[in-house]
Amino acid sequence: MIRIVQLGLGPLGQKVASYALQREGVKIVGAVDLDTEKIGRDVGELCSGKPNGIKISKTLTEALEDEKADVAVVTTVSSLEKVEPQVKELVEAHLPIVSTCEELSFPWKTQPKIAKRIDEVCKSNGVACVGTGVNPGFLMDYLPSVLSSVCQDVQTVHVSRVQDASVRRIPFQQKIGAGLTEEGFKEKANNGTLRHVGLTESIHLIAHALNWELDQVEETLEPVRASKKITSGYTDIDKENPRGVEQIGKGFIDGDEKITLHFRAAVGEEESYDEIEIEGTPSFSSRISGGINGDIATSAITVNTVAAILKAEPGLRTMLDIPVPACFSTA
Amino acid sequence: MIRIVQLGLGPLGQKVASYALQREGVKIVGAVDLDTEKIGRDVGELCSGKPNGIKISKTLTEALEDEKADVAVVTTVSSLEKVEPQVKELVEAHLPIVSTCEELSFPWKTQPKIAKRIDEVCKSNGVACVGTGVNPGFLMDYLPSVLSSVCQDVQTVHVSRVQDASVRRIPFQQKIGAGLTEEGFKEKANNGTLRHVGLTESIHLIAHALNWELDQVEETLEPVRASKKITSGYTDIDKENPRGVEQIGKGFIDGDEKITLHFRAAVGEEESYDEIEIEGTPSFSSRISGGINGDIATSAITVNTVAAILKAEPGLRTMLDIPVPACFSTA
Repeated sequence: MIRIVQLGLGPLGQKVASYALQREGVKIVGAVDLDTEKIGRDVGELCSGKPNGIKISKTLTEALEDEKADVAVVTTVSSLEKVEPQVKELVEAHLPIVSTCEELSFPWKTQPKIAKRIDEVCKSNGVACVGTGVNPGFLMDYLPSVLSSVCQDVQTVHVSRVQDASVRRIPFQQKIGAGLTEEGFKEKANNGTLRHVGLTESIHLIAHALNWELDQVEETLEPVRASKKITSGYTDIDKENPRGVEQIGKGFIDGDEKITLHFRAAVGEEESYDEIEIEGTPSFSSRISGGINGDIATSAITVNTVAAILKAEPGLRTMLDIPVPACFSTA
Repeated sequence: MIRIVQLGLGPLGQKVASYALQREGVKIVGAVDLDTEKIGRDVGELCSGKPNGIKISKTLTEALEDEKADVAVVTTVSSLEKVEPQVKELVEAHLPIVSTCEELSFPWKTQPKIAKRIDEVCKSNGVACVGTGVNPGFLMDYLPSVLSSVCQDVQTVHVSRVQDASVRRIPFQQKIGAGLTEEGFKEKANNGTLRHVGLTESIHLIAHALNWELDQVEETLEPVRASKKITSGYTDIDKENPRGVEQIGKGFIDGDEKITLHFRAAVGEEESYDEIEIEGTPSFSSRISGGINGDIATSAITVNTVAAILKAEPGLRTMLDIPVPACFSTA
């Protein structure tokens, strides 16, 4: 039985907790959130409608006053800078960490100083820490790296994650800018609230797996525009208006585009799919038609990684160097 | 620079060596084979037509008389019993091992005593050993386990590897029984020369990844019969005669078929593909249309795993608990 303390009970944290509560083999023994409306509530009741006797605390110290945890699940922020003090506190309490913090998935190139500090504090306390999730953490970085294992050489890696948002929750449709005007989209794009975080980290993880030294990494974000009026989403979208977002990340060596990540989520997209194309020896393409639901997958891989991180070597790890966090639920 | 000593220079061993010779970052410093026609020959010349100054030796001791190796690649036998003394000798020389021995990929359930002995000798000598390859080792076991990482629960796993042998080498077409009579097929099936080794090991690896306790594992082997005369292979095949082989492996819990592995290689197969279907939360299917060429992939993953095994913990490891052996060739 692995005892979990969970930090962060926003929508994703609640879903992760609800998954952990469903599982055999793991147990939530503590929960922390800063939201005064959540503090004091039963975490089981909040996340799955069924009380589990564990109250949400304001601080880690309070949460672990009467309970001992084996591992911390951190679903608080996307920013490495913001997650650093949380990681430090947990690690100094000798708790290994699994986090959905996107920038933690591969911070070695983007924020090497913070990465090094986190690595050192993990090592000196003898625990491992990893950033995971479906994306970054799996579909656009770990899985392509795994697939490259059967290659004698790799020339290029091209990953597409395309999602029809019509079938997704309204907040998701809003998040990707569907139904906004051109100006509204630009505003959200500029203040960063539209952006899927992690594309650059995914590029760096793939490059690391393939032993590539990229000399240029770039990321673009554009609206996907409706070619005709769309009525399949939560709100009608006029012709030419944004129906979603497209982000493209590219990694180059000597001017050659070696890694291309194509993320597109829009209302009225014809087909959802996840596709990985490797050009090399051999060349092949692997496709998941229909795609993988992001909310389910991120929550599931986070819980699955709780078991894997306990077997990982101390330090700031990546998905590449921890045991396979396969689904360990009992049949 | 990782220095490799290679044991076994049959067709697969030669291809693995040729791949290692092409790579930056690895170097063959010794080679061993029992074939008197090969002993004394230059391994580079034999495997890639370009001498590398390393002569093939009869024994490990001779091979490493003047050279120091970091890791051994073993491409000798499929049987765990037969590989055990080879593993023991290498491990006692403190060499980590990557082997294509199919039964080594997951011997814990099928041959637990030998597995335990190998694990112990590895641990007491502080080195790691792993069995890998495309199948077993990747397509029908490791990759489905990796894919399950995004699942909250898994109900069933179904893997199909279907190959049109028309485009493959003549020895491959012969190996799968294409062009034999019904009687000839039965004879080869009975003496075991037709059989793809590893299906049972793959089932056990998946079950281990998913934390499942199977109570029954079975394997069948049948000819694939021509529904009409076939002329696309190395030899004409009459209607009703074998055009290839189909092996099905199944793993059960309480009478429920939880894992199904479907391996089919035949001349005149309409389509080659590798497909993994997971039924669970979420359910999805991942498909590589055209499939993965087995010779290339097994040779490549063996070389890739050479780097991963050096970072693995001592003991008899599986693909599940070593770092991702991504393709480390430089771009």
